[in-house]
Amino acid sequence: MNAFENLAPATDLRVDGDRLWGNLMEIGRIGASSDVELTRLALTDSDGAARDCVVAWATEAGCEVSVDAIGNIFMRRAGRRDDLSPVLTGSHLDSQPDGGRFDGACGVLAGLEILRTLNARDMQTERALEVVIWTNEEGARFHPATLGSGVFAGAHTLDYGLSRTDADGVRLADALQRIGYAGPAPCGGRNIYAYLEMHIEQGPVLESASASIGAVTAARGRRGYEITLIGEASRAGSTPMERRRDALFGAARLISLVHDIGMMHAPLACATVGMLQVRPNVHNVVPGRAMLTVDFRHPDDAVLLDMDARLRAGVVRVAKDGGLDSEFRQTVSQTAVRFDAGCVAAVRRAANHLGYPCMDIVSGAAHDACQLARVTAAGMVFIPCLSATGRDDADETTPELIEAGANVLMHALLAHALEGDRYAAAVARA
Amino acid sequence: MNAFENLAPATDLRVDGDRLWGNLMEIGRIGASSDVELTRLALTDSDGAARDCVVAWATEAGCEVSVDAIGNIFMRRAGRRDDLSPVLTGSHLDSQPDGGRFDGACGVLAGLEILRTLNARDMQTERALEVVIWTNEEGARFHPATLGSGVFAGAHTLDYGLSRTDADGVRLADALQRIGYAGPAPCGGRNIYAYLEMHIEQGPVLESASASIGAVTAARGRRGYEITLIGEASRAGSTPMERRRDALFGAARLISLVHDIGMMHAPLACATVGMLQVRPNVHNVVPGRAMLTVDFRHPDDAVLLDMDARLRAGVVRVAKDGGLDSEFRQTVSQTAVRFDAGCVAAVRRAANHLGYPCMDIVSGAAHDACQLARVTAAGMVFIPCLSATGRDDADETTPELIEAGANVLMHALLAHALEGDRYAAAVARA
Repeated sequence: MNAFENLAPATDLRVDGDRLWGNLMEIGRIGASSDVELTRLALTDSDGAARDCVVAWATEAGCEVSVDAIGNIFMRRAGRRDDLSPVLTGSHLDSQPDGGRFDGACGVLAGLEILRTLNARDMQTERALEVVIWTNEEGARFHPATLGSGVFAGAHTLDYGLSRTDADGVRLADALQRIGYAGPAPCGGRNIYAYLEMHIEQGPVLESASASIGAVTAARGRRGYEITLIGEASRAGSTPMERRRDALFGAARLISLVHDIGMMHAPLACATVGMLQVRPNVHNVVPGRAMLTVDFRHPDDAVLLDMDARLRAGVVRVAKDGGLDSEFRQTVSQTAVRFDAGCVAAVRRAANHLGYPCMDIVSGAAHDACQLARVTAAGMVFIPCLSATGRDDADETTPELIEAGANVLMHALLAHALEGDRYAAAVARA
Repeated sequence: MNAFENLAPATDLRVDGDRLWGNLMEIGRIGASSDVELTRLALTDSDGAARDCVVAWATEAGCEVSVDAIGNIFMRRAGRRDDLSPVLTGSHLDSQPDGGRFDGACGVLAGLEILRTLNARDMQTERALEVVIWTNEEGARFHPATLGSGVFAGAHTLDYGLSRTDADGVRLADALQRIGYAGPAPCGGRNIYAYLEMHIEQGPVLESASASIGAVTAARGRRGYEITLIGEASRAGSTPMERRRDALFGAARLISLVHDIGMMHAPLACATVGMLQVRPNVHNVVPGRAMLTVDFRHPDDAVLLDMDARLRAGVVRVAKDGGLDSEFRQTVSQTAVRFDAGCVAAVRRAANHLGYPCMDIVSGAAHDACQLARVTAAGMVFIPCLSATGRDDADETTPELIEAGANVLMHALLAHALEGDRYAAAVARA
């Protein structure tokens, strides 16, 4: 039993949690690599099969399905006034190698479940509701991540997106053709009234606060670096300490510095050395070379700038102290995203209305919603993942929490799709 | 031009440096992997070919050659009194993969060159002089290192030595048979009057002091450890700093601690983290596991004990602070060796007599001489290696330095083989 069992929504308008869980289990078998993991790289056969399956369900549910030129799939439930811009929700179906089964899929299937719930209640919305499956969110097969939503939001051109290649040199355009998802619809260029995405947190914050819902206020900006320290390999037994040019000792000082920089800006900052490669990496040789990666995140770009400056100064200092040469390369620069205040408020209100413990939270990772924030009012609903599952990367959750997230997402979407007093009236009627 | 050119020995009794260098170049071609490196793993075809070549030269020089049960080869030049125990010199012919061409070979060939020099001068010694080629000094093919000399000196039984297997499961006994060096002579069990070994320093100390000869007073003892820190892999972008169990940050603290322990006992201590393996070692994941090796050296076992205690306490502290589990395994324990005062003095005197700048030095690595120190008066002559060659592991030297080392070795051997006043008289006559 965990902190989130026995949730009782305070309103009658809610999704069918069992149906949603059943769909998730069914989609989770496509590309499954274990009971709880799957490998469904973008535009592979398994990604195609998952797309086909969801499209079939959406068609059954009466949606009009369209596919755009980068392979994003839109499943539309018409509104009363199709002259108004639609309200959009969704996520992605592609995964990392051995990725979590809820990452992406729960946002897509929650959207579909919401459309079915509205169908069952025969509820009509003012604006159309569309559920989207974005292409290549993970970036595991085609670099960069959030590519489909990025092209949609104008962060990249369509040509850029279609010409990305995977490790085997396969072009994204050809991979789309192969699985039948090179669509005729133009990518982007149309108005979206609002975009709300439900996603599993993939971090420990909600669980440790016993909150079942996170109202995501921002996504951390990110800076990535690759730093190489070059000293001199020499024999461990015969090179006096004061004559060494030990690249690994320099790297250790940088790892401590990165940790200090993170602590200095805690709790919102994340600062990580995730990768370290040592040469020659032999027990009796002083290391001559060490390459490490640094990953900084913070929701305020000004703080990221300060972290960047401290790192650069630290590398110069550590290299000088240790008689080392250094190579410094910035590999990632993503600006921080502040989500739309109206979307965040809608998520908070929906959670309160439904009686779910809710807290504001900052997303560490970039999601498709960060791209959508460029062109529309965007927001996110986070649900907790549970450390008790023992999975290193914390990708597991429960049927109850997924149902809670879908309920909150539904009410937040309706608040946008119904407009003003009509939302309250509709919920009261339901 | 380097600091060691233009050496002029102060006495006429000296080896033929050109002949010695020519022999070294010839042996260096057997198993050569580059102009200056060779791969001549113990008891492979190339090791066998190098042995055959040196045995042929020794036979030509009139030596009586015998091979013992572990494959050690003894090349004996008789003395006036064969009832006295012999004076022994030598080293090894096996190498590391891409090892230096002078490591081992220069000690063997210097010994042979000394016998030829004495032949040419028709100098008779009181005691027999024997040049030995020890089996499997490097430990690169068969674990452990200094195996042939170790069995000779009683550190290991013969059965232990013969039953060692390489990575392919080949037994050392079979490898010896295959190249024809499973000899009939018993291994060890006889008196040796003294053992002196010439070796390249493989460190920067002599070069930086512009000393052409090192009188090796001791070999550092050694402790080796493998330490694993186990935390929890988690996402770099969404795991707050204070909730992390970052194995790599713990490893960085240990690397700094190892460095501090080394500096605390400088200049004689060496303390090295040479190997670090991180899991999952991905740029956007907080590392869940880090394995590192620690290598401590010091010529005083009491200091090594202190270093050991500080490391063990540090691992407990770092693990506790970081919420980490730890695994601690000691992999190496070699006691320090103090070489025989008479042998050290003989080397110093020979260098002074010949006019070579000489300094006392401590060996970082274990050599066959460390095994011989168990059963006889043992000492070593180091010659410098030159960093100007740009090789990472500093295995290069010059013909002049090798000649200097061989001259010092010869005079130090004669001081033992001639006894007392007879050495001075013989040198004066020569």
